[in-house]
Amino acid sequence: MKVLVHIDDAEQWRDALARRLPQAEVFTSSAPAEKRREADYLAAWKPSAELLGEPERLKGIVNLGAGVDALLGNPGLPEGVPIVKLRDAGMAELIGDYVRYGILHFQRDFDRYRRQQARRDWREHAVVDKADWPVGVLGLGAIGAKVAAMVAADGFPVHGWSRSPRSLDGITCHHGDAGLDELLGQVRSLVLLLPDTPATRHVIDAAALARLPEGASLINPGRGSLIDEAALLDALGEGETEGRLRGALLDAFPEEPLPGASPLWSHPRVWVTPHMAGPTPLGEALDQVAEALLAFEAGEALDTVDPEAGY
Amino acid sequence: MKVLVHIDDAEQWRDALARRLPQAEVFTSSAPAEKRREADYLAAWKPSAELLGEPERLKGIVNLGAGVDALLGNPGLPEGVPIVKLRDAGMAELIGDYVRYGILHFQRDFDRYRRQQARRDWREHAVVDKADWPVGVLGLGAIGAKVAAMVAADGFPVHGWSRSPRSLDGITCHHGDAGLDELLGQVRSLVLLLPDTPATRHVIDAAALARLPEGASLINPGRGSLIDEAALLDALGEGETEGRLRGALLDAFPEEPLPGASPLWSHPRVWVTPHMAGPTPLGEALDQVAEALLAFEAGEALDTVDPEAGY
Ligand SMILES: NC(=O)c1ccc[n+]([C@@H]2O[C@H](COP(=O)([O-])OP(=O)(O)OC[C@H]3O[C@@H](n4cnc5c(N)ncnc54)[C@H](OP(=O)(O)O)[C@@H]3O)[C@@H](O)[C@H]2O)c1
Ligand SMILES: NC(=O)c1ccc[n+]([C@@H]2O[C@H](COP(=O)([O-])OP(=O)(O)OC[C@H]3O[C@@H](n4cnc5c(N)ncnc54)[C@H](OP(=O)(O)O)[C@@H]3O)[C@@H](O)[C@H]2O)c1
Repeated sequence: MKVLVHIDDAEQWRDALARRLPQAEVFTSSAPAEKRREADYLAAWKPSAELLGEPERLKGIVNLGAGVDALLGNPGLPEGVPIVKLRDAGMAELIGDYVRYGILHFQRDFDRYRRQQARRDWREHAVVDKADWPVGVLGLGAIGAKVAAMVAADGFPVHGWSRSPRSLDGITCHHGDAGLDELLGQVRSLVLLLPDTPATRHVIDAAALARLPEGASLINPGRGSLIDEAALLDALGEGETEGRLRGALLDAFPEEPLPGASPLWSHPRVWVTPHMAGPTPLGEALDQVAEALLAFEAGEALDTVDPEAGY
Repeated sequence: MKVLVHIDDAEQWRDALARRLPQAEVFTSSAPAEKRREADYLAAWKPSAELLGEPERLKGIVNLGAGVDALLGNPGLPEGVPIVKLRDAGMAELIGDYVRYGILHFQRDFDRYRRQQARRDWREHAVVDKADWPVGVLGLGAIGAKVAAMVAADGFPVHGWSRSPRSLDGITCHHGDAGLDELLGQVRSLVLLLPDTPATRHVIDAAALARLPEGASLINPGRGSLIDEAALLDALGEGETEGRLRGALLDAFPEEPLPGASPLWSHPRVWVTPHMAGPTPLGEALDQVAEALLAFEAGEALDTVDPEAGY
């Protein structure tokens, strides 16, 4: 089989994949055009429309990340070619640590202490017990389910939300519109780990934010499209004085890099990180890529992306 | 037995202790002087020298916190009266979360991202794996040992240091001067959980800081006296550019509240918190107080503070 690899650092991926699959011919997008046209499989992260349209007899695509929104929205995507995405592959633990940091940031008042420091203001806030700090996790997929379990193991009550009903140890599971309403009404930190799909766009809008208890905080390592930014800024209010929404830790934005003109950069209660919550670790990811390619070749059933649902 | 209680919120402690020890007469420091003079036991946090000198036949003191430095340095402290301090009592988990936050703050580059945000600088740093981020914990007492275990459970290699040799599951234990040198040479985050004693004063001086690997970070929920502040500022260097020492998260200071004139307040790589890492939780602490008082009354052997060693 012929595998075309496209990602930052593609040479490293190519060499490691070739070692795992000696029977395959693996090359990067800098190979000659006639070679690219012959590829049976594409293992890629955010390929251009051009590159995506080149292979003439593509049998499968492996998305080198968890989110397939960029791929599904790519005009070069050939119809009917099955897509497999990475499942966790070590990202869940990295995102879990991001989320843990974010929850402690608000629960232990580090956000307030940082603002106080600028005024040399030595004032202690009473700690709200973890047991009284319910956390909501929207999205219970490969990543969301593991993150929810990590947060629960730390001692926080955790509510989760998915499209279909789920049952997870130690997590209060909700689903559907009514389930979301129920969840929002009782969480002090809300974590977004939903994919970017037509159905999840602006799931956090003015109405959702209004459902959150006064003083709740938002943590978004998911996708920028999940949040209606105008509604977010409105719920935050201006300046240092805490509004209905206490603060937000945001890793994902509708446009990345976040444009210099965005008011999020300078909001004193918004913490911006540059989409760093869950980088794809090479090792486990390569195992999954190799496994998927072998399964494609063998004609085995694979857990593929549903283009209709968008994830 | 007659128990004099002195602490912020003393009424709450008095009532809860009286419920646990119906046989005892429990009163606060606002009781009349003749009552205070009759106290058999004192359960207190930072009593004044005057109050400490009042009881005429004191049989024991329970320190309502883990650190006894203020008590041992109090000129009103009667000689020969046994002192018991709180052991963990729920503080270790609170301090453990403080330390977890601090380690992630540096390991996941949240310190850098916060500074970048002020310049609208979207730039990702490669994550250093937890396995390559050894953490040192100085002090393996009731709190340090539990914090070290929490950090190890999170996946960081942990080195611990104590006065006497210790052996703890999953922790590389060191002791004595040579042990400290060994530990300092290899940790990327250094956590201070030593008591304030003559022997621990300025244990983190210029020489100790010079032993740390370039780019190490310091987390101090212990005591301010442990650090030579001039050496710390020197190792940090000035401004945003990271010096030999990348940054510090500090909860304890030689003088508290931290004086407005302290250069720590405005250093861009120092994060100041107002001694909030381990507030004493009432419930478990009261159990320990009641237990200690009953043991004192019964003449049972108790794990008391060694005034010579200072902890
Ligand atoms: N910041 C970063 O660096 C980074 C890195 C990796 C991933 N991510 C983000 O994390 C997201 C989650 O990844 P994953 O691998 O866990 O995805 P996944 O396995 O596809 O899981 C998606 C979850 O979202 C739920 N969901 C989808 N549409 C929904 C809807 N309309 N209503 C309610 N629930 C819905 C799904 O419900 P069902 O269980 O019912 O299907 C599922 O639980 C990715 O899409 C990506 O955006 C970010
Ligand atoms: N920030 C906060 O809110 C907060 C709250 C509570 C406590 N604290 C701080 O945490 C400290 C630790 O509390 P703890 O209850 O764990 O104390 P502890 O049980 O008395 O333990 C002290 C530890 O330090 C070690 N040690 C003492 N002197 C030493 C020396 N000269 N060289 C090397 N090791 C030495 C001891 O060694 P051995 O094991 O050999 O005896 C022991 O492991 C307290 O003293 C206090 O300063 C802070």
